[in-house]
Amino acid sequence: MTYCVGILVREGLVMIADTRTNAGLDNIATFRKLNVINRPGERVIAVATAGNLAISQSIVSQVTEGLENPETGEIETFENTPSMFKAAQLLGRAVREVYRLDGRMLEQKNLAFDCTMLLAGQIKGGRLRLFMIYSAGNFIEATADTPYLQIGEHKYGKPILDRAIKFDTDLQDALKIGLISMDSTMRSNLGVGMPIDLAVIPRDKIDAELVHRIEPGEPYFHDLRERWSAALRQAHQNIPRPPYGI
Amino acid sequence: MTYCVGILVREGLVMIADTRTNAGLDNIATFRKLNVINRPGERVIAVATAGNLAISQSIVSQVTEGLENPETGEIETFENTPSMFKAAQLLGRAVREVYRLDGRMLEQKNLAFDCTMLLAGQIKGGRLRLFMIYSAGNFIEATADTPYLQIGEHKYGKPILDRAIKFDTDLQDALKIGLISMDSTMRSNLGVGMPIDLAVIPRDKIDAELVHRIEPGEPYFHDLRERWSAALRQAHQNIPRPPYGI
Repeated sequence: MTYCVGILVREGLVMIADTRTNAGLDNIATFRKLNVINRPGERVIAVATAGNLAISQSIVSQVTEGLENPETGEIETFENTPSMFKAAQLLGRAVREVYRLDGRMLEQKNLAFDCTMLLAGQIKGGRLRLFMIYSAGNFIEATADTPYLQIGEHKYGKPILDRAIKFDTDLQDALKIGLISMDSTMRSNLGVGMPIDLAVIPRDKIDAELVHRIEPGEPYFHDLRERWSAALRQAHQNIPRPPYGI
Repeated sequence: MTYCVGILVREGLVMIADTRTNAGLDNIATFRKLNVINRPGERVIAVATAGNLAISQSIVSQVTEGLENPETGEIETFENTPSMFKAAQLLGRAVREVYRLDGRMLEQKNLAFDCTMLLAGQIKGGRLRLFMIYSAGNFIEATADTPYLQIGEHKYGKPILDRAIKFDTDLQDALKIGLISMDSTMRSNLGVGMPIDLAVIPRDKIDAELVHRIEPGEPYFHDLRERWSAALRQAHQNIPRPPYGI
């Protein structure tokens, strides 16, 4: 299982991903799912992946090696795509290329071609954007109305995002709320686990201000988890009891 | 979609169910999913259903009309089952009977035989018990370690249960926390909706102390939703910001 969330607010972007993979409950491992390309002043691109690990790793490798743009004939990678929209199209083409190579055999084995991705970043001259790419290679983009996108095990961590994230939420709070969303997910699904990778990209700085891995036992995150649990318990205690006379 | 939760604490049992059904987003209706049989001093049984409405209604009708117990040859209903375990077996047989009647045709139409149920109550001479019956007609029982069971859209409402429900939680708090869990689910899934049916059965009283429908706009539930949203926002504001220097 996997949980990744991207949050795009006025001040910038936060992307958070867990690192746990499992091929059955008896085969758990740690793999990086969040990759950041940072060329300060020129481009900063973050990609997070969920789904079948063989598929998502192949997609990332396809993009790294480069794929031909059918319109221009040029070999594109994230190092040279001229815009974030073109980067999303490139990632979608990589999804389709891996489907072309592996899809039929996976279907023969009754395995789903299961892969979704978050793509975010800013390229000089363009704006900071956040996309979710589906397993068909098509994609949607976050907007001010719904400024976050999730992939993987998204339900446990959604209530806090629904209530607390607005486009005007400041960047530090967006990171904090994203970490609470990750905590809620890890608490209820053992397939999502530490360490946690995160990236923070301020708008128009074209630089990843923070790329960090939270290891188990890191004091801030441990404290956040404890405080959030205590606050939830406290929150319901402050609500009056039902008036139904039981 | 549906969300139902049963919570079994030391003092008694709470069962809560929404009433929204949908055959596609364009076909929404209200159906009672929580049924209570109350014979004070003799037996009290509550059943909540999730899944395909045609299946779950047929199962309830089968039990109401009675099914032969293959061991005794007698016709059993919830009015005469001698124990809650026997009531769970009866409900499981009803599931299998409906599968025998409808399962093959549903499979031909590529429709899943999708039905899960909560069954709870107490019969004179026995103890208060809570079961979850699967679409195969088998079942599990809640215990003091995990004193709640959910059916339907269970993920959004699980984090609060995981953190706040213990076997020693008192009955009024269990009801309140169950309503918060329902609120979290309705907030994130439009397929779960008002009105909400609830039943409260104190242990060893063999009487449903409360069977109630919360209609839209009921002041207590409206207030609970407002307070819970405000408390969640407050809760994250009381957590320090990340120390990562952004």
